Amino acid sequence: MSITRIDTGPRMSQAVIHNGTVYLAGQVGDGANVSEQTRDILAKIDALLARAGSDKSHLLSAQIWLADMTTFAEMNAVWEAWVDPANTPARATVESSLAARQYVVEIMVTAAVKG
Amino acid sequence: MSITRIDTGPRMSQAVIHNGTVYLAGQVGDGANVSEQTRDILAKIDALLARAGSDKSHLLSAQIWLADMTTFAEMNAVWEAWVDPANTPARATVESSLAARQYVVEIMVTAAVKG
Amino acid sequence: MSITRIDTGPRMSQAVIHNGTVYLAGQVGDGANVSEQTRDILAKIDALLARAGSDKSHLLSAQIWLADMTTFAEMNAVWEAWVDPANTPARATVESSLAARQYVVEIMVTAAVKG
Repeated sequence: MSITRIDTGPRMSQAVIHNGTVYLAGQVGDGANVSEQTRDILAKIDALLARAGSDKSHLLSAQIWLADMTTFAEMNAVWEAWVDPANTPARATVESSLAARQYVVEIMVTAAVKG
Repeated sequence: MSITRIDTGPRMSQAVIHNGTVYLAGQVGDGANVSEQTRDILAKIDALLARAGSDKSHLLSAQIWLADMTTFAEMNAVWEAWVDPANTPARATVESSLAARQYVVEIMVTAAVKG
Repeated sequence: MSITRIDTGPRMSQAVIHNGTVYLAGQVGDGANVSEQTRDILAKIDALLARAGSDKSHLLSAQIWLADMTTFAEMNAVWEAWVDPANTPARATVESSLAARQYVVEIMVTAAVKG
């Protein structure tokens, strides 16, 4: 079973495809708040999934880290407007500080390649 | 390869099955302390795995988040009484605040569908 | 599809192989600082991947937890010297306290079994 990598840098790849499953790197985004950053992240995820032969209706699992859990509802509003409601992934959301202080949300997903 | 989802809501599914692997959402539980919440979580995991055609002897990986790492031994006592000791998953446990302050432990697992 | 487990203890296995994918437990290491612990962790990962029929050029995804995000650059220097730059995994790094206070970094990876 071959491995395909997308946007491979010396530290990480933005996506790795193996055995029909796509693993995306944790995505962070631009924006002044959780809503804006979440929108930017989800657009990046859409673009990476498209390049990997998948899309948001094929999400399998998602991990979401919030720098401050009081923004949970704000993140969820953007998330729920984005996901395919009939095809939502397994998900967990926890609070953690992220790699740089300007980032208030990070999302890492896996998805199935379209059949 | 088809995708099967269990308890699909507008935010997440409680389980997603693809290519012989089951991805469960992060589970939280009721209870006044880590022991009680862990027991409740593991009962939820048992039920979801059964509906997905798997069981705890087929666990592949587990992530555990504790709101307070001083409860690590308390969580482990319940965990070790529950797992099939001959078939334990790969596991990582870290400290993170969870989605609501009453939750002191959250567990997210993947498992293999029974062959 | 069978499941193979490596170093199975009553709490976790250090590696679980299923359907061509290897799931490693979160690894911690010895050392006085992030550099030393990261080197020790990556040596443990090399050894476990070898026993599982994989290697670092087959990494699919990685999660890294740092007890203190100010050590991000220090961890990355060791990471980037170790990975196969043409075959880096999808990765996310967040800040979390770990199971014991002496541990300042923990790494959990998945990899593909060599074909």
